[in-house]
Amino acid sequence: MSLSTDHRLDRTVFFSDAVIAIAITLLIIEIHVPHVPGNDVNEGIAALVKLAPSFFGFVLSFLVIGRFWLGHSAALASMVSYDPRLFRANLYFLMMIALMPFATAFLSQNLGQIVPAVFYNAVLTLTAGANFLVMRIATDIKSGHSNLDGAGATLYRARSLIVLAAATLSVLLALVTPSFSQIPMALILFGNRFLPTRLKGPL
Amino acid sequence: MSLSTDHRLDRTVFFSDAVIAIAITLLIIEIHVPHVPGNDVNEGIAALVKLAPSFFGFVLSFLVIGRFWLGHSAALASMVSYDPRLFRANLYFLMMIALMPFATAFLSQNLGQIVPAVFYNAVLTLTAGANFLVMRIATDIKSGHSNLDGAGATLYRARSLIVLAAATLSVLLALVTPSFSQIPMALILFGNRFLPTRLKGPL
Amino acid sequence: MSLSTDHRLDRTVFFSDAVIAIAITLLIIEIHVPHVPGNDVNEGIAALVKLAPSFFGFVLSFLVIGRFWLGHSAALASMVSYDPRLFRANLYFLMMIALMPFATAFLSQNLGQIVPAVFYNAVLTLTAGANFLVMRIATDIKSGHSNLDGAGATLYRARSLIVLAAATLSVLLALVTPSFSQIPMALILFGNRFLPTRLKGPL
Amino acid sequence: MSLSTDHRLDRTVFFSDAVIAIAITLLIIEIHVPHVPGNDVNEGIAALVKLAPSFFGFVLSFLVIGRFWLGHSAALASMVSYDPRLFRANLYFLMMIALMPFATAFLSQNLGQIVPAVFYNAVLTLTAGANFLVMRIATDIKSGHSNLDGAGATLYRARSLIVLAAATLSVLLALVTPSFSQIPMALILFGNRFLPTRLKGPL
Repeated sequence: MSLSTDHRLDRTVFFSDAVIAIAITLLIIEIHVPHVPGNDVNEGIAALVKLAPSFFGFVLSFLVIGRFWLGHSAALASMVSYDPRLFRANLYFLMMIALMPFATAFLSQNLGQIVPAVFYNAVLTLTAGANFLVMRIATDIKSGHSNLDGAGATLYRARSLIVLAAATLSVLLALVTPSFSQIPMALILFGNRFLPTRLKGPL
Repeated sequence: MSLSTDHRLDRTVFFSDAVIAIAITLLIIEIHVPHVPGNDVNEGIAALVKLAPSFFGFVLSFLVIGRFWLGHSAALASMVSYDPRLFRANLYFLMMIALMPFATAFLSQNLGQIVPAVFYNAVLTLTAGANFLVMRIATDIKSGHSNLDGAGATLYRARSLIVLAAATLSVLLALVTPSFSQIPMALILFGNRFLPTRLKGPL
Repeated sequence: MSLSTDHRLDRTVFFSDAVIAIAITLLIIEIHVPHVPGNDVNEGIAALVKLAPSFFGFVLSFLVIGRFWLGHSAALASMVSYDPRLFRANLYFLMMIALMPFATAFLSQNLGQIVPAVFYNAVLTLTAGANFLVMRIATDIKSGHSNLDGAGATLYRARSLIVLAAATLSVLLALVTPSFSQIPMALILFGNRFLPTRLKGPL
Repeated sequence: MSLSTDHRLDRTVFFSDAVIAIAITLLIIEIHVPHVPGNDVNEGIAALVKLAPSFFGFVLSFLVIGRFWLGHSAALASMVSYDPRLFRANLYFLMMIALMPFATAFLSQNLGQIVPAVFYNAVLTLTAGANFLVMRIATDIKSGHSNLDGAGATLYRARSLIVLAAATLSVLLALVTPSFSQIPMALILFGNRFLPTRLKGPL
């Protein structure tokens, strides 16, 4: 019984890309279109201002999911063949990504509140945890499925652990000061450009 | 008149992956985002607790669809060329998968009731039935489109028949005790890891 | 200036598959999940029966879009390189496919009425018209992009013309007797299996 | 540490196609299905006429996104390997594309008003700006990732600059006369066919 395993790696990559692409695009449908009665400029602007928290959540989650996609993309591109252990870890990862449109809307529509902030950051933490599991399998150089060397594998794992730590920190922050709990993830998102090149690796 | 049949197999795989990915991600949009008036922790938690049946349905259907995808992925990856009989069976399979977000929301929002549980399990049974048809075509070693040997083909068919039997059993259970009717599918989902390796096959 | 034109054909195929897959899966989100108050079997069944027109529309449109996908898939699989004329015709085709979830819900929620039936069938006719244009470009054996012979190209064009004729007929029928206006398309969908093999071609 | 960079280019192309395909198809779900009470032809027609602004927005945005996809598709097809700078610019581009269903519905449901028209055209301008950044990276012949010659690269950049200029102009127009602010983009969409062939390039 033989299986074209590369074909299965391709389908896993493809299926993951599709789920991530759908989740990232569905972020927008939770923002409800306002009706502006009469051609009143002030009312029109007010309607948009009222949606500011939703736009904030949209942009934040778009960048976060985009960054997860980048790491996922780079790690799986470094695999030379399919590892069956990928399925379960990857499915949990995708399940958490699929939860993001809900978590984002829950956060945005109740911005500054403890429970929505804790929930959002907990989903992020579970996403980061599942992402770490995917990374560990994808960069397992002993399995023979990866073409990374030891340093490359360590870099991937270290990066995904840093994201996991930041997400965990944001849950704790949300319990104390929900309004500022997104700062650790924002630092991850924008701090990358200040890293020395050798730590940036393939991202 | 010649056709690049592998190209058509690729497109079938691709189209199926896309429909499955969309259906699995759409599961979340049936969970409506609660508005929590005031920064009240108890109300926030209560709002989430009220959504517990929806999260249960989301996780269950995500795992079920994920598992169907895995079998579909493995079976079509074992094909070496396109079999025109795939189209009809696969389209019925995808139609049932596309029904899942509706069936899941119907089940979750009316948890413990007979009709929604029977409906959900009936959709699962039809999905499993169409899946069995797809498996039979994809693993038809006499057709020349499969690269499986006899034992491999039998394993795929046996597994899809077990899923079909479990889904049928869950319909019957739902008629008697709807709250526990998801147990057969849950056993399928989590029982796999206790199987002897030679029965696990490529999954 | 050189372009990897096959790459562009691949992306056109891919983009079309994605739009068709999304449209076919979105059909379900127009069916609103009923809430069944109390564990009443009769009410539960009544809620589903009330949705019967929606399920009818879902199944009809799923099969129609599936069939369009099959023809599109086979025709583009027979191309060996990208024809720039594809873009415009294909975009109109995809626009009409993207309209289908709306047209289907409009038909289903007002079943038996003239305007929704005419609208639905008009969208089908425009889809079939754009499909014919795509077929004409994809099977243009003089362009050097197709690997079909003359008989193959004629078969594709004849089939897409028959679909266009059936859709046009259904618009006319809808003006007189909306409830029966889906019959021509249904004949196309299910009549195929009674065709002599040589007319079935690659479908 | 080695990475199959072409694999990463493929995934970037794929992910972009998927997001664009989802956004273009989601345009339709913002058009709410009217219920026509009684089989009244006049009421049915009136319900559709009331949706005319929504259909206008749907068609306009479908063509605009389709055209952006065409340019994106052609530019990335001319790349021979992955440029890591693509990620950030492309993510901003996709974020703006994902905003289009919201911007389109906001425009359509408040047609002729200043704020929605300015917002829609501002989103278009940001899309065109991000698109220009993507084009600049994808056609950077000094980077070694592009297989374009100098004239080809200039053509891509010039075209994306013209789109950016038209979108900027439409923002200004919207401030004065919102109802006619879509004219510059419409000229871009339909003016292409009157261009001399050497300026049409690969589009």
